[in-house]
Amino acid sequence: MYNPKHFEQGDLSVVSALIAHFPLGALVTTQNGSLEADHIPFLLDGDLASGAKLIGHVAKNNPVWQLASADAECMVIFQGPNAYISPSWYPSKQVHHEVVPTYNYAVAHVYGKLTVSHDPQTKLEIVDQLTASMEGGRKEPWGVLDAPAGYIDKMLEAIVGIELSVTRIQAKWKISQNREDRDRLGAAKGLASEAPSPTAAHMARMIEAKTGIGQA
Amino acid sequence: MYNPKHFEQGDLSVVSALIAHFPLGALVTTQNGSLEADHIPFLLDGDLASGAKLIGHVAKNNPVWQLASADAECMVIFQGPNAYISPSWYPSKQVHHEVVPTYNYAVAHVYGKLTVSHDPQTKLEIVDQLTASMEGGRKEPWGVLDAPAGYIDKMLEAIVGIELSVTRIQAKWKISQNREDRDRLGAAKGLASEAPSPTAAHMARMIEAKTGIGQA
Repeated sequence: MYNPKHFEQGDLSVVSALIAHFPLGALVTTQNGSLEADHIPFLLDGDLASGAKLIGHVAKNNPVWQLASADAECMVIFQGPNAYISPSWYPSKQVHHEVVPTYNYAVAHVYGKLTVSHDPQTKLEIVDQLTASMEGGRKEPWGVLDAPAGYIDKMLEAIVGIELSVTRIQAKWKISQNREDRDRLGAAKGLASEAPSPTAAHMARMIEAKTGIGQA
Repeated sequence: MYNPKHFEQGDLSVVSALIAHFPLGALVTTQNGSLEADHIPFLLDGDLASGAKLIGHVAKNNPVWQLASADAECMVIFQGPNAYISPSWYPSKQVHHEVVPTYNYAVAHVYGKLTVSHDPQTKLEIVDQLTASMEGGRKEPWGVLDAPAGYIDKMLEAIVGIELSVTRIQAKWKISQNREDRDRLGAAKGLASEAPSPTAAHMARMIEAKTGIGQA
């Protein structure tokens, strides 16, 4: 990814927050010479700073897990809030008109090697951890034990557990931090007032706070 | 992409609407043996059904445009609304408890060959078209002519126009359409009431309407 220094996000706790808030990763692989992507909710297991793992599962019918034996490096793309930024929102436009549109976004690319698991107990643990994470914010969280054991066994047979051992991370935070303060705040205000897309309000808060995902 | 028949989105007008509403594509390439992705706002030029083009631009400093000479197939991922679906939202859970969580999403993968343009007039047209599209919904749309000509010329020098001639499309709409009606509507209602993420409300409307992006 083209990632100029001023857009690089080096704070791995902020990158971890992006993954937690936008867990649907695009697992990018090369299969038979073709670029492929499978959209899979991932859970970050451990600390990104010290070799964490992304865990998830896929349908047994999905050929992607067979790549684990190829020992190739995969990439998982997590796309966070993003929005078009109109130059009309920059107060400096009124002064010199030397402004152009841009597009803001926060994204993380996590690289790693894939391992798979067919072991029922390991798969149950993966499903249990993912469920606990996804249901965590709910008043009455659903848990795997809420379903009949025989049914869960049958469902586990249809999936394969996957783990991505993280080898490297690229993160880009393009949130108007390269603009002077009045223009940056103008962009946040403009976005918040026009809310042209579902994630635009979120991006507005990030621009304003110059911060991460959860805190904004 | 693993894409079972019942999740395949074959209506290219609906796929075009996803691209229009979520224009930030992840342009996936292989560079020096490494998978790479650059996040670029794209405009769909023409009709997906009959060999359209995705147009955009990148910084001249971004090495991705040099791939055009390699004549390799690239993939652009457009990720639309997505959300975790709790099995607690299915009325059928109360009856037999044979339910598990899932994750809904609508995504499009557009494959094609990259061509680049260094011609100032072509680049101006690309920038003008993209701007008109992005500013289209605004009360007082900003236009390229609002900036001083000398300034625009300088900005155009720093970018390269790119075009992706579409060769094939994969689209997956996983919006609970494989559930019985009461569970599908329960998921929509649950999502709408808990709104756990910025795009969840959007997904709730899509599930309810069994439809596309713009119409939902």
